[in-house]
Amino acid sequence: MDQRLCNLVGIQYPIVQAGMAGGPTTPELVAAVSKAGGLGTLGAGYMNAVAIKESIKKIKELTDQPFAVNLFLPEEFVVDRQQIHRMQERLNTYREKLDLPLSPQVSKYGEDFQEQLEAVIESDVKIISFTFNCPSQTIMNKLKQHGITVIGTATTVKEAAILEEVGVDAIVAQGSEAGGHRGTFIGREEEALIGTIALVPQIVDKVNVPVIAAGGIMNGRGLVASLALGAAGVQVGTAFLTAEESGARQLHQQAILECEETDLQLTRAFSGKMARGIRNSFMAEMEKESDLPPYPVQNALTNDIRKASAAKKNREYVHMWAGQAAPMSKKQPAARIIETIMSEAKTIVHGIRF
Amino acid sequence: MDQRLCNLVGIQYPIVQAGMAGGPTTPELVAAVSKAGGLGTLGAGYMNAVAIKESIKKIKELTDQPFAVNLFLPEEFVVDRQQIHRMQERLNTYREKLDLPLSPQVSKYGEDFQEQLEAVIESDVKIISFTFNCPSQTIMNKLKQHGITVIGTATTVKEAAILEEVGVDAIVAQGSEAGGHRGTFIGREEEALIGTIALVPQIVDKVNVPVIAAGGIMNGRGLVASLALGAAGVQVGTAFLTAEESGARQLHQQAILECEETDLQLTRAFSGKMARGIRNSFMAEMEKESDLPPYPVQNALTNDIRKASAAKKNREYVHMWAGQAAPMSKKQPAARIIETIMSEAKTIVHGIRF
Repeated sequence: MDQRLCNLVGIQYPIVQAGMAGGPTTPELVAAVSKAGGLGTLGAGYMNAVAIKESIKKIKELTDQPFAVNLFLPEEFVVDRQQIHRMQERLNTYREKLDLPLSPQVSKYGEDFQEQLEAVIESDVKIISFTFNCPSQTIMNKLKQHGITVIGTATTVKEAAILEEVGVDAIVAQGSEAGGHRGTFIGREEEALIGTIALVPQIVDKVNVPVIAAGGIMNGRGLVASLALGAAGVQVGTAFLTAEESGARQLHQQAILECEETDLQLTRAFSGKMARGIRNSFMAEMEKESDLPPYPVQNALTNDIRKASAAKKNREYVHMWAGQAAPMSKKQPAARIIETIMSEAKTIVHGIRF
Repeated sequence: MDQRLCNLVGIQYPIVQAGMAGGPTTPELVAAVSKAGGLGTLGAGYMNAVAIKESIKKIKELTDQPFAVNLFLPEEFVVDRQQIHRMQERLNTYREKLDLPLSPQVSKYGEDFQEQLEAVIESDVKIISFTFNCPSQTIMNKLKQHGITVIGTATTVKEAAILEEVGVDAIVAQGSEAGGHRGTFIGREEEALIGTIALVPQIVDKVNVPVIAAGGIMNGRGLVASLALGAAGVQVGTAFLTAEESGARQLHQQAILECEETDLQLTRAFSGKMARGIRNSFMAEMEKESDLPPYPVQNALTNDIRKASAAKKNREYVHMWAGQAAPMSKKQPAARIIETIMSEAKTIVHGIRF
């Protein structure tokens, strides 16, 4: 087996828990994965500097094993007041259903990336993974000065080549099956939906750094398949959403445990950026909307609706990110997910003889 | 390794050459694959009964090994004269570019399925594979009476369950990566785009018949990955389009050998049914067309344009089906494709140790 990923980040098993933002990656989940021999990841994309520091402190209290922090690299975006006004009008129909104030004032679109990054560096984190863009040379130099290992995310061969060129240490190859937001940073998201089985070997052939397969992987079958494709490891997201230690909302976890593979659809409706989740009324009704503000504007505009829907235990107006392998999810401790992946994988490899 | 597919159809290696319709599957290609230990397949979807019988006769002259014939199961479709008129008007802009007569009379939309089926049965073929629909119980009974092994095509778990219920002997699980037409027969094609790595294990868990993984597979890495996912074999299409024995047009083969993974896009523009191929002007310009006649009507309407574009060696107005792994294609004899897949696969399995 390709040991480069394990050696690079100092883990026993080639399993990375995806840094899913917005609550699922509690310090308990991150620590449990790392203690079990995988690489836990704090999904800090939506956290402010104070919250990031607190979470990292807790993780370090729970484990001395390596873990990573995932951040969203900022992208250029245009704020169009008239477009925002039109979207607010449309979103007000949902606010009425949820007894929310209409057209709330939105003062900011996300956390300050530089403050997030400083918080991670000051907390002496050794591994950072990024998505949504390619880190600049300035960021790379800074992280290298601090001895931080950097993992980038690519959805195409070209993106992987650019990430390698800027100096990342490993690349997540995000297949079209993946849950949550697409990491595409070149070209149209629609045209960068390459299935994991086709994407991974093409990226492996292109770059020299270790490749981490992501998208549709949640058990030993997915791990062995990914290693066969040339990956040095896997990134597993959805499977950890229903871990005992997961901070994902109860309604989200329940939807994952009940879904079918055709329920996992792509949408831009919640955030302005393409993401895969369990289909609901909001996704269906907004499907034809051609006038969506870009990410992170739309994400900020729908924030009150998503929160209120979740608070009312109403699945129809809240994002429930999950990948296409979600129907294979089980409720179990994170350590058991890691153990089961490894024991299944060993059995599978022994079973393949020609 | 799961030997059920090999035992079922009497082949040495668990590799099925996809029954790609429209020319690529020459008798020479089918026979070369079968002689090399795989399962060659005549793609007879667009052939009339006479041509089918002739091709099968030639295959049998070339090999005594098992081979299959693939047919398109008919679907219900509506012929809307006004819609056809509007599309003809639109297509005339392409006909002008290609010096073709405008709005040609289209007298039929495809070959007669019952005649195709009779030709296959009368030719004493032992294995039939189907796509585009589920065979009726009447068809299944008839084929079973003739001792014919039947392979169905599914793009979702539900479709696989229905195929098993009707009595097929094996199921091709067609992942979203696959080139050519989607086999979806329940629900919207857009919602049945499940990546191979997520689809195969879910179908394997659902049905008892052997599952053949398809979509994004063209080398030993793809074979081992598929076996790890629980498949009993793989169906390989695109890799055989550039085989020495392939009947695919030179312009199509050249495009495959030059393409990038982001060039492989989905379109309904050529046929009315969703299919994956190398992006060109026709696909791009027709992308927003919301008034497409259904398959096989649109297929018949674009026939003259596609033929003329190919004859003029113009890539822009002819379908060039291929899957998302196409950039890994090589020009080589079919037997070498099979040999290489198997030797790579053995090396890969030996290399995965925990």
